Amino acid sequence: MLGKMLENVNKKHPLVHNITNYVTVNDCANILLACGGSPIMSDDKADVEDITTVCGGLNINIGTLNSSTIPAMFLAGKRANALSHPVLLDPVGAGASLLRTSTATELLEKVKFSVIRGNISEIKALAVGSGSTKGVDADEADAVNDGNIDSVIDFARKFSSRTQAVIAITGAVDIVTDSSRTYIIRNGHPMMSKITGSGCMLSAMCTAYITANPDEILTATAAAVCAMGLCGEKAFAALLPGEGNSTYRNRLIDAVYNLDPEALERGARYEVR
Amino acid sequence: MLGKMLENVNKKHPLVHNITNYVTVNDCANILLACGGSPIMSDDKADVEDITTVCGGLNINIGTLNSSTIPAMFLAGKRANALSHPVLLDPVGAGASLLRTSTATELLEKVKFSVIRGNISEIKALAVGSGSTKGVDADEADAVNDGNIDSVIDFARKFSSRTQAVIAITGAVDIVTDSSRTYIIRNGHPMMSKITGSGCMLSAMCTAYITANPDEILTATAAAVCAMGLCGEKAFAALLPGEGNSTYRNRLIDAVYNLDPEALERGARYEVR
Amino acid sequence: MLGKMLENVNKKHPLVHNITNYVTVNDCANILLACGGSPIMSDDKADVEDITTVCGGLNINIGTLNSSTIPAMFLAGKRANALSHPVLLDPVGAGASLLRTSTATELLEKVKFSVIRGNISEIKALAVGSGSTKGVDADEADAVNDGNIDSVIDFARKFSSRTQAVIAITGAVDIVTDSSRTYIIRNGHPMMSKITGSGCMLSAMCTAYITANPDEILTATAAAVCAMGLCGEKAFAALLPGEGNSTYRNRLIDAVYNLDPEALERGARYEVR
Repeated sequence: MLGKMLENVNKKHPLVHNITNYVTVNDCANILLACGGSPIMSDDKADVEDITTVCGGLNINIGTLNSSTIPAMFLAGKRANALSHPVLLDPVGAGASLLRTSTATELLEKVKFSVIRGNISEIKALAVGSGSTKGVDADEADAVNDGNIDSVIDFARKFSSRTQAVIAITGAVDIVTDSSRTYIIRNGHPMMSKITGSGCMLSAMCTAYITANPDEILTATAAAVCAMGLCGEKAFAALLPGEGNSTYRNRLIDAVYNLDPEALERGARYEVR
Repeated sequence: MLGKMLENVNKKHPLVHNITNYVTVNDCANILLACGGSPIMSDDKADVEDITTVCGGLNINIGTLNSSTIPAMFLAGKRANALSHPVLLDPVGAGASLLRTSTATELLEKVKFSVIRGNISEIKALAVGSGSTKGVDADEADAVNDGNIDSVIDFARKFSSRTQAVIAITGAVDIVTDSSRTYIIRNGHPMMSKITGSGCMLSAMCTAYITANPDEILTATAAAVCAMGLCGEKAFAALLPGEGNSTYRNRLIDAVYNLDPEALERGARYEVR
Repeated sequence: MLGKMLENVNKKHPLVHNITNYVTVNDCANILLACGGSPIMSDDKADVEDITTVCGGLNINIGTLNSSTIPAMFLAGKRANALSHPVLLDPVGAGASLLRTSTATELLEKVKFSVIRGNISEIKALAVGSGSTKGVDADEADAVNDGNIDSVIDFARKFSSRTQAVIAITGAVDIVTDSSRTYIIRNGHPMMSKITGSGCMLSAMCTAYITANPDEILTATAAAVCAMGLCGEKAFAALLPGEGNSTYRNRLIDAVYNLDPEALERGARYEVR
């Protein structure tokens, strides 16, 4: 089932329009190519509508938002909606600044998203309109664990119901849910938090998955989250003595490049509620 | 002959001013260092003329053009022209959006380029003023093959004649031509299309080659194209089991770093017409 | 002593706000994670004050400054000053353009910096308000060597006295000084000049060190400079035949990831005057 999602990415080579931050943009482009998609980046008001039109899906990431890219996010989002393209929001740093929180909130009001993916602090900030995100990382007080997972799922389902988007809250344990069905995913490795961009890369890759599987947004998102976590495990297993986070990043993208549907099916560790 | 071009890069360490996209900019800087050149990036209207003045050549890449960098491209281009510095245009995504096509077209009118390098769809879009570029990749219907190569060469020569620039159309087969002489180059590896930036990196490196060989623009461009393709082959040969596109990118830049004039001379696979 | 500085980075995980160039920003983020810190990038006027507020230190790098990020540098710098956060200035390319020289000079007037780190040409340009920086690299005529080191130290001490900032002049030999005490550091490897961003990465890492050691700015800066140079040596020692500058960059960040306080203490090569 999850393998089928990747199979469709490989078959359709979805072209993904990314309005994303300049910190991890190269990694996002390479992971899109690695998973079988194709990236294009464009963030100028005068360019984004044409570019979105030739693409199949749109990934909006507010990691280094600014006064010139914010209007482009709205224009591209609306155009993508008009064309019924899947659109993903990655609210990087929502809760850490007013601009980030309010931009993400306004995007939610004006653009219909298929998926919203972030860490727990970002998603909470988005849901309540304010927050205490520690920079671009989740606040430790927010961490999802066995003790609070039921209430996090309940929160995520309600937020999904309100936004009509699949909600993907990623961290040590990942929650991917719509208003009725939830994947609890336990793939991944702590070393993923030692590189910049593991979240951004997942968002980019997830956009490729949902673009290739527009009628199965929930399953496609769960498949992308499992794939990323599984590749995080494989990358760690491949690490040699003396290697560190920079090589880990390469091995992670390499693992995505080499992942096939069967391996994803076999390696995915999740339960559905 | 081609080896001599690289020898001059190694001898002169040309300083190259890049106005380029933020997706592949780090790779462009590292490949410039790898080939023996030196990079500087600057894209603000108030900065570019000074920077171009202290450099030897200029690389203009419209990959993530925006309303603030576009005017800087014209200012830098004109200043470089006034100083007789070689200038290269990489019309990334021309044909995929009106802004890209019209900016590239206007650049061609107002700036004298030594070299224009792109994929076949981009170059066609530039020549006719519109196109059907599939994002930043060439349209498959445009691909250069044994059946259409004569007509592509004819087209490229005419475009060279009109623009007075060397035209480099790169893909599975590469065409590098001025109005009378054509290099048909068969170096390269399909894996080069699985990383972001192989085209951008080639443009940056090509600018170093032409800056170090200002009186041999055609030969220098052909040498850079052969060098990139040859290093793409070497990088693939060096790839270990389990490695993928991210490591391939590193091995490609590493191969450029280790390429010497003799190896380039020996490994270049081309015919001249 | 120097090891203690790194120990504090590992203990406190300082969150560092970076306003930096888009060329090396990914490397800066990954080296901050590698050394035990945490990065956030933000450069919009409307965003930087909030972001600086949630961080512990600020790294201002003018590598690809533009009309929209320059005002953000002043706003963030002033806010960081008001909060008594350590602030570092990396005047990339000062001396190579009027905009770079004048922006860096004005930053010095309006923002109190804890550390100013650059190559000798950049620091000289900053001190005299003009210069002959060769792009982003030091002018060879400026290079620090045994013949001129006393006069360079004298110059750096006076500049430190005037700016009340620790001055770090890095190159083949590194000088780290305040108005009275000077570290002369001889770690490092020539290959560090074959990758883009070794200076930017050092500035980012240095900001993590001073943020974690706010009462020992001089020692923390010297520790970061030694750490970077030592890791440059380790990265070179780890290089395999056929590898080049791209893999070297990975091995450098990996070495920072694996550096512990004892290894830093043992490997640091410096004298104090």
